[in-house]
Amino acid sequence: MSSSVAVLIPAGGASRRFGGKTKKQFAEIAGRAVFLRTIEPFADHPDVKQSIMAIPPEDEELFQIKWSAKLDFYGVKVVHGGAERYETVRNMLAAVKSEMQMIALHDAVRPCVTREQIDAVFAAAEKHGAALLAHRIVGTVKKVDPDLNVLGTVDRSGLWEAQTPQVFKRDILFNAYEQIGKIQDPITDDAQLVEATGGKVKIVESDPSNIKITSKTDLAVAKAILGAREEKKPKGYQGPWGAEQGW
Amino acid sequence: MSSSVAVLIPAGGASRRFGGKTKKQFAEIAGRAVFLRTIEPFADHPDVKQSIMAIPPEDEELFQIKWSAKLDFYGVKVVHGGAERYETVRNMLAAVKSEMQMIALHDAVRPCVTREQIDAVFAAAEKHGAALLAHRIVGTVKKVDPDLNVLGTVDRSGLWEAQTPQVFKRDILFNAYEQIGKIQDPITDDAQLVEATGGKVKIVESDPSNIKITSKTDLAVAKAILGAREEKKPKGYQGPWGAEQGW
Repeated sequence: MSSSVAVLIPAGGASRRFGGKTKKQFAEIAGRAVFLRTIEPFADHPDVKQSIMAIPPEDEELFQIKWSAKLDFYGVKVVHGGAERYETVRNMLAAVKSEMQMIALHDAVRPCVTREQIDAVFAAAEKHGAALLAHRIVGTVKKVDPDLNVLGTVDRSGLWEAQTPQVFKRDILFNAYEQIGKIQDPITDDAQLVEATGGKVKIVESDPSNIKITSKTDLAVAKAILGAREEKKPKGYQGPWGAEQGW
Repeated sequence: MSSSVAVLIPAGGASRRFGGKTKKQFAEIAGRAVFLRTIEPFADHPDVKQSIMAIPPEDEELFQIKWSAKLDFYGVKVVHGGAERYETVRNMLAAVKSEMQMIALHDAVRPCVTREQIDAVFAAAEKHGAALLAHRIVGTVKKVDPDLNVLGTVDRSGLWEAQTPQVFKRDILFNAYEQIGKIQDPITDDAQLVEATGGKVKIVESDPSNIKITSKTDLAVAKAILGAREEKKPKGYQGPWGAEQGW
């Protein structure tokens, strides 16, 4: 039996590194906004019973005009992001329905995640309580001082780079966020918060093509990754939302 | 005053992970073999006075037929690779002319390196003796056990992923390869060999778009990265080797 999953997509980032007027989550790939492409494989998933997205409060008007009808149609609830990421997540957690058994967090700027990867990380979280996608670090890793001198080569065995989705049984994630005030270390992802509050977390092997878009080059890269997959699909298939329409 | 640089491009890998009949270094991006695209910014560089490529001995015939005239024209000397990477590099070092003051090693499957990155790492090696391109690891890094349980989140500050070119003053690299038999640790890049033999190595900040092609998806990604740059060039510009010709 599959659990009911709530998907939380924080799109509240200020996107300071991306440059230009358009925030990276609202930039388009082949005529469709990145965050809509990101939502698609979740909106289409039978276990996902609730979808919540957090947007920057200052983008409310843009949203109403451009995307609210589309998001309503797909049942995506929109809440406001906070000043810090943990506040954004808390705002989303407050909107999670009581019947949801698992909660998945996914970056708004990771549109290349596949259905197979989502299935695998959902299954692992259901079995183990907490799971995330990640890929092995295969390049050589250097420890470097602030003046850019190499201090040494780090043993890369057992080092993985975290991705999303990161998926948790409801109580595990709520418990972790309740304890967030007690944690001293800087927290860089939700799994770390669960680790810091005593939870066990499982890795599900992904590959580096589940990229996080942080630059304009990454937009072209994401388009290429999605395009390479389209070539493998049967002709005439246009995805769950039909052909490219530019909305 | 600029040093004379010999560029060494080991293309001798068996390419076991890539799949299919064509090795990744010989696969094509928009009609031109990856290794030719990789050589291009070096062949075009005024400080590069010698270029040496190592190929798998079993690919000698393929090379003669398809690419030897082109490589001759660009002055690229071809030698055979060995069973291990260090043997391949030794074969190339044996062919370096005595008047070369610096040696640059660059992966045959990193075609997206830019002229600006090459200039910067050449300058750093000339000043400091040894330098490599690398990018900061910005994702969250997990330490993971063999059963895929997360052991903890690693402090990523000061962690960089090494790329190539890796550039060395001649004596530093020759000295390091002479001592290779004394080193116990597994060596994953040339800079590590220099570090292990007492050399100081400097980092030159690159970005992740200087990718190493290891999969078919990476081929599409490299094409997108190169294509995104073409869009910024003045119209009519066709690169140092002219328009796409499919050779």
